[in-house]
This record gives sequence, structure tokens and C-alpha cells, in this order.
Amino acid sequence: MRAVYLESGQVSVRDIPELELPAGFARIRMLAAGICNTDLELQRGYYGFAGVPGHEFCGEVVEGPSAWIGRRVVGEINLACGHCSRCEEGMGRHCAARTVLGIIGHPGAFAETLTLPVENLRAVPDDLSTEHAVFTEPVAAACEILDQVNIPQGEPVAVLGDGKLGLLIAQVLHAHGGRVHQFGRHAEKLAISAQAGISTELTNGKLPLAEYRLVIDATGSALGLRQAVALTKPRGTVVMKSTVHGEVAIDFASVIVNEITLVGSRCGRFEPALELLRTGRVDVSRMIDSRFALTNAAQAFPKAAGKGVLKVLLLPD
Amino acid sequence: MRAVYLESGQVSVRDIPELELPAGFARIRMLAAGICNTDLELQRGYYGFAGVPGHEFCGEVVEGPSAWIGRRVVGEINLACGHCSRCEEGMGRHCAARTVLGIIGHPGAFAETLTLPVENLRAVPDDLSTEHAVFTEPVAAACEILDQVNIPQGEPVAVLGDGKLGLLIAQVLHAHGGRVHQFGRHAEKLAISAQAGISTELTNGKLPLAEYRLVIDATGSALGLRQAVALTKPRGTVVMKSTVHGEVAIDFASVIVNEITLVGSRCGRFEPALELLRTGRVDVSRMIDSRFALTNAAQAFPKAAGKGVLKVLLLPD
Repeated sequence: MRAVYLESGQVSVRDIPELELPAGFARIRMLAAGICNTDLELQRGYYGFAGVPGHEFCGEVVEGPSAWIGRRVVGEINLACGHCSRCEEGMGRHCAARTVLGIIGHPGAFAETLTLPVENLRAVPDDLSTEHAVFTEPVAAACEILDQVNIPQGEPVAVLGDGKLGLLIAQVLHAHGGRVHQFGRHAEKLAISAQAGISTELTNGKLPLAEYRLVIDATGSALGLRQAVALTKPRGTVVMKSTVHGEVAIDFASVIVNEITLVGSRCGRFEPALELLRTGRVDVSRMIDSRFALTNAAQAFPKAAGKGVLKVLLLPD
Repeated sequence: MRAVYLESGQVSVRDIPELELPAGFARIRMLAAGICNTDLELQRGYYGFAGVPGHEFCGEVVEGPSAWIGRRVVGEINLACGHCSRCEEGMGRHCAARTVLGIIGHPGAFAETLTLPVENLRAVPDDLSTEHAVFTEPVAAACEILDQVNIPQGEPVAVLGDGKLGLLIAQVLHAHGGRVHQFGRHAEKLAISAQAGISTELTNGKLPLAEYRLVIDATGSALGLRQAVALTKPRGTVVMKSTVHGEVAIDFASVIVNEITLVGSRCGRFEPALELLRTGRVDVSRMIDSRFALTNAAQAFPKAAGKGVLKVLLLPD
């Protein structure tokens, strides 16, 4: 089958053998897949990655348990071992032996087909389009915030950053009832949030001090994290939603004196994400920048890395 | 009156005028005061401090509202403005206009007398000794953890560090019902915790990985904070209890991927601390290293800074 292959910074499309299908797994024909910042980081060599990337997808089950054949699905990306202490505690997304679709030890969705355990699959509702369903994984990551911190109705929440994840977070928290104010550097991206009824502010980097009890850092930068801390009231909380790489220095004295809480946040449950997308309470229609055939992945990656570009989709050839 | 004065790293004892006593304040004769690591840091020049230090004390009210005269008291160290939004939210300890006894803008307890607003005072129970009452402030700082994170009965808790604050934290969490395991580098200090029934471990710096859901960092060092993060299970919590100064670099990628929560923690309520000390559930009798007359403060400070030394008390001349 045709698959995108990343190695030493190069994006190629290769013919590779399909994976064998273990018991309890399904083979899924990719219908659409999204290029995420993590994929761009894998290309740049984070985690020493070499292989087939892709973890945001919607597909159709073509092989596996008969009840699933022909169904349109999305899939949780963490493949847990199922029997360690963390799995038994219901923390399969933190299983130390896990593989991760398209990221760690399991070939990803930028291919004609991919495989996942059936327990990772979620059926896509008929009234949710395939292209919008591709956003389930990042919307679930945004929903994870709701499982970690309490956001009462009307609570002011600052979202820092207007990249793809920042836009989804703003919509998710807004849909949940938070009074979201989003700071960003791109008028055209903030306009997407503004259309959803979210208060936005174009900033050149100067932010208010100690103004919010809850701040979400979705900047992906060390400077952004430091700004998020400064924006937070004493006894407030910063949710660290985008990965900053390597060691980042922050002023822990101010975090301690002001008793600020920093919460690391990664993947989330798919169920609330599917519902938000199905109902349109999170609307991703303006977030799709362009579509490329799988064969043209080598053009799609630099496009996705371009300044101001939102979601680039890969579609079957 | 006689008072200790810190300036440019020098400890001197000077005659200075007593402060005027505003309405609502009490003048307190110092009966005993403790030298804290913060005092040693003030001596080294943190916060550009120059003045009378000292914030751990027990004293007797000698001037002020008649109901207080002659009473033995301890005092909360943050002097809040009382009318800003934070004060109105009950967060006086985070009032942006606050002064802090012996630390920021208000002369401290290393003097014949000190002053505090009456609302900051707490009467010392008759069955709590003056010297033990001096520990109320740091025990309250340890109790603050209980106001910030939930510790079910029997929950394993790791305490990193066996300095003065680490020892108090271990006893407070143990008394609260946590199953405390304390890591430290000083056998003679860990012995104090062991006598209180706390599990201890002498370590040369090698710690287990991802072993505890709750870790308290009381090391006061950047390395300690990094070790605390590594010791914490996915979705676990690190309480940052001792101040590390300047910018500290940690691997935020692992904090985010493992969804770890970092909680800054500072001062706490005095009431539970007084009760723990009164009942002896926190026993500080073995934590007093030595006593110096106020006049000899210039000898007491280097003693307190000595390796392996626990609490050094200052007493009236």
C-alpha cells in the first residue's frame, strides 16, 4: 500500500506492506487525515522518529470484527497494553508500554490503511462529515481540559495562542460555558473565534498581569508559557496545553509565592469531542486550509508548516 | 529598643526607635523567635532587603486593645490592605499591596518588640510552650498543602528534602493520615521523622521514577524540583513548597505528556498549626538546635546557616 514515510527530515511516499492484523484489531481505510504540529515536529526529528506518521484521521473499517466492517470511525491514538497497573487504574493513555498511532511504535494514518485495536475505535455519527471528524482527536485534546479543571458557567478564561489547537480550545471552552478571551497574533485566525462569539484580542506580546484565574497556554513556546504564568492571578491555574520542547526556564519563585498551579494536559476522551463536532458547537469548517492527495504529501507538509496556515488534509489518491 | 538589622550581608544589633502604633495594631514583646531559611536568604541579599528581619515568633501583647494586653500570641505575617479585590475575595495573603512581617516593608520579630494588626494575632493555648509556638508559622506553611490538595487516608506521599520545612511537612502530612515516605540526605535529620513514625530513606540523589501520585518538594533546589517531577506518576501532583530562586529550567515536555500538576505553595492558616503543635501531633522538641540572646544575633545567623543545623532561636536579652 501507499504510505507517507518520514526519515531524516524527508517526506516521501512509499509502497510498504500492509501490517498484519492481530486479534482484536481492525484495518481501516483512510478517508481523510489531518497534518498536526506534532507531525511537523516528527519531521524535524523530535523523538528520533522514522516511519509512517499521522494520528488525526477518519476512516472506514475494511477488515476485523464483522460488527465494525463498513463503519466510519475515528480512533483513540494510544494503544495501551491493557494489563499493567496504569491500565488497571483506567489510565491507558498513560500506559508506560503504550504505542501511539503515528508517533511511537505504531504506523500512522497517512497511508491507504492503518490498524488499531477495536476498543480504540469510535463510530462517527452519520450527521458528522468525514472531514470534520478528522478534528476529533485535537478537539478531544481540548476537551481534556474540562476533565482536569473546573470551569464554572461564566468563568473568565484566557486562551493564549491562536494556532489550530488554540482555536479549538477557545471553541470548546466557550461551548462549555466559559467566558473565553483569546489572545493571539493573527487577525485572520482570531476572526474564526470571533465568529463563534468568542472575545479576541490581537496582541504584540504585551499582556495584562495577574488578570485571570484560569489561563490556557496554547502557544507552544517558552515565552508563551512565561506569559501565561504572568497573566494568572494568585492561586490561579495555567493549563499547559501545547508541548514546549527541551528544558524551559521559568521563574518558579513567582509561581510559588503566588501559589499558581501548572497543569500538564495532553490527549482526551473522544466522546465529548464527537458530540461537539456533530452538533456544530465546535465549528471547524473555516479551519481547513487545503487538501492534498496522499501521493502529494511531500507538498502537503511544507504547506502545513507555512505561516498562518491552519489544517491541511490528506485524502486518498 | 534593640533590634537585629540586616544590611549588605551584615548582621548587626542596633538601637532603633519603636514603631508608632496605628489604630487596630498591637505592640508585642518578643519572647522567642526562630531563624528561617528565608532570613538567611534576606541576609544574602534576596529581595534587596535591608531592615529588621524575623517572622517566626511568639510574644506577649504589651500595647493595643485592652482585650489583648498580656496575652501570649503568634501572628500571621502578611499585612493585607483589607479593601482590594483580593482581600475582598478572602485572599489577604495574596494582597498585592501587602507588607510582610520581617520580609517586605514591615519590621520583623528579631527585636525587643514588634507590631502587627490585631486581626493577624492568634492566642497561644496555655498548654503550648513559647518555644514550640515559634514553629506555628512554618507548620502553617506545611498545613497549606492540606488546603490545596486532597490527601485521602493512607495515600502514599513522598516528601523530598529533610531540612526544617521538610521535617515539618512530613509530620503534618503524617498526622493528617497520609502514608509519608521522606527522602533526605541527612541521617540525623531523618531520624526525627522516623521517631514520629514516618518512613524515611537516606538517598545519595538516586530516586525511583514515576512512583508517587503526590510528591512534595521541600529541597529548595532546582535539582530537587526536577527530581520531584521525575518521581511523580502520570496525572500526579508535585507541590512546590520551598522557594527556588531565579529562573529554573525543567523538562516541561515530560510534565505535559505525563499530565503532571505543579502546585506552588506558600503561607497557610495558623489555626490547624496551633492545634497540631498543642496536641504534640507535630513534635518540634528535637528540632531546636540552639538559643542565642538577641544581642548575639551576629553569632546566631552563621550558626543557623551551618550544615545540618535545624532551628536556631533568638531570645530576649
